[in-house]
Amino acid sequence: MLQQIFSPSVQHALDLIGIFVFAISGALLAVRKNFDVFGIAVLAEVTALGGGLFRDLVIGAVPPAAFTDLGYFLTPLLAALLVFFLHPEVERIQAGVNVFDAAGLGLFCVAGTTKAYEHGLGLTASATLGLATAVGGGVLRDVIAGEVPSLLRWDRDLYAVPAMVGAGLVVLCLRYDALTTVTSALAAVTAFVLRLLAMRYHWRAPRAWNRRSAAVEEV
Amino acid sequence: MLQQIFSPSVQHALDLIGIFVFAISGALLAVRKNFDVFGIAVLAEVTALGGGLFRDLVIGAVPPAAFTDLGYFLTPLLAALLVFFLHPEVERIQAGVNVFDAAGLGLFCVAGTTKAYEHGLGLTASATLGLATAVGGGVLRDVIAGEVPSLLRWDRDLYAVPAMVGAGLVVLCLRYDALTTVTSALAAVTAFVLRLLAMRYHWRAPRAWNRRSAAVEEV
Amino acid sequence: MLQQIFSPSVQHALDLIGIFVFAISGALLAVRKNFDVFGIAVLAEVTALGGGLFRDLVIGAVPPAAFTDLGYFLTPLLAALLVFFLHPEVERIQAGVNVFDAAGLGLFCVAGTTKAYEHGLGLTASATLGLATAVGGGVLRDVIAGEVPSLLRWDRDLYAVPAMVGAGLVVLCLRYDALTTVTSALAAVTAFVLRLLAMRYHWRAPRAWNRRSAAVEEV
Repeated sequence: MLQQIFSPSVQHALDLIGIFVFAISGALLAVRKNFDVFGIAVLAEVTALGGGLFRDLVIGAVPPAAFTDLGYFLTPLLAALLVFFLHPEVERIQAGVNVFDAAGLGLFCVAGTTKAYEHGLGLTASATLGLATAVGGGVLRDVIAGEVPSLLRWDRDLYAVPAMVGAGLVVLCLRYDALTTVTSALAAVTAFVLRLLAMRYHWRAPRAWNRRSAAVEEV
Repeated sequence: MLQQIFSPSVQHALDLIGIFVFAISGALLAVRKNFDVFGIAVLAEVTALGGGLFRDLVIGAVPPAAFTDLGYFLTPLLAALLVFFLHPEVERIQAGVNVFDAAGLGLFCVAGTTKAYEHGLGLTASATLGLATAVGGGVLRDVIAGEVPSLLRWDRDLYAVPAMVGAGLVVLCLRYDALTTVTSALAAVTAFVLRLLAMRYHWRAPRAWNRRSAAVEEV
Repeated sequence: MLQQIFSPSVQHALDLIGIFVFAISGALLAVRKNFDVFGIAVLAEVTALGGGLFRDLVIGAVPPAAFTDLGYFLTPLLAALLVFFLHPEVERIQAGVNVFDAAGLGLFCVAGTTKAYEHGLGLTASATLGLATAVGGGVLRDVIAGEVPSLLRWDRDLYAVPAMVGAGLVVLCLRYDALTTVTSALAAVTAFVLRLLAMRYHWRAPRAWNRRSAAVEEV
């Protein structure tokens, strides 16, 4: 078992922040899709907890944290309530929401990688699960809402890469026995800043080479 | 371990009824989507067993009941066969099917909540899993068939709320050590009747406040 | 525990071939959907490993093989890279890819059924999980990419039936204690050949009887 990276209460507070901002993004999509108040709550929960739920099922940590920690469950409901009443205001501060979402991405890729490694997975598998923790909720959100996952689309700013870099840094630290509070925080901040830069400068990943023009219409 | 609420054979018969009616709804959607006979069978299985499968994975009850009880597996195939040959007749009695579906909803939210609690989950988590047991199969059905889950849509009669009420009543009984065959049955019947009333009077949940008109087109 | 059917290294090589060809099909769909390079990699991984991941979660074999065997993880990335650079060439040999995909189908339905049985599931459940191992990745691929699963559509050549036959043969052998390397290989080859024949002669499964013409438009 790895030593605790952050103090438990700090880690918990960070988790709740990540859950809250992810839930906001789910609730906003639900409003745009014209779902009712329960649809908003469901999509908020799925977005916020889906990635961690998948990680916990894969590493065999059942029941998953999403079902044992009441705070994890209630936070998305709070976000759903907020969006239900104030969604025009929340949309207006979308840029601010995106900054928090980037913070959630950084926190989750680090926490997910660390938890997977603590449960005995290899370095590559831990990094993969860290990435899945960070982006899995968003993919589930889009699939359930009937949208093509924005993670996969070429016309969206880089999202997976910052999380990959963050998870990769954690794995490097684990490999060289250098994972401390400071290096963990650095990995999370790196992912966070990379995501902010990707949004600011619209960094995008290339599509397949030599795509035939016929493919263009299919986005 | 909680004492058995219903006698095992009664509980099993109730489970099979719930599975059957959920499978019918999956098979009917498959026919409407023009799937072939195997698509009908797959969608019947997924709809009937998906919610319980999710619950069992989360509480760590593997292999899930869906894979250990042959009756659970064969019942959806029977429903698929029936719909395959007689779907116009089944559609004609859609109102009757809906009544059975409401019964399945009531049975599953109670059974799911109870099973989750027996596996050591907290009260809130148990109620959430009871709700997921009752509605999860329908969400999977819609996602796999490429439809926006009818659970989330504002233009559908209340479906989650009756299940929430049923699961909530079970949790209340558990909290006050009052869960018996009678109170369980009452919780299931309450959910059942609420769902019938929601269909009869077209009860719906509100959408987000102050939606901009632009959002209307997106359903 | 069942005796090893194939020698471990042969089994592993067969697994990697199956994973590779399934990953190719995922990557090709990603290119057609205009996803970026990460979308291609994600869809390749999901298609190749999704079926086995589902099986392992259901039988409680956690962490799943997809996360413990580095080769399983890297092979889809190789396929994604190949498709990224050479997709017009890969599309041109689509017929060849389909032959390999059929081989993957045969291998996975046999390996999946055997693994489920080794973990103590009944014969019917083992065959079902063998089928799920073989076709699950493709269903996940289509759902994530926002397509109606081609497995379910009536206008596609038989895909599930060959896998069912292969899984059924394995279960018959298990029932009569006759599962050897030879009978396993025969089951895999039978599924493989049936799929090739289904593609060659466009074998299709029937849709529901007496469909109303109104349903036609909904494909």
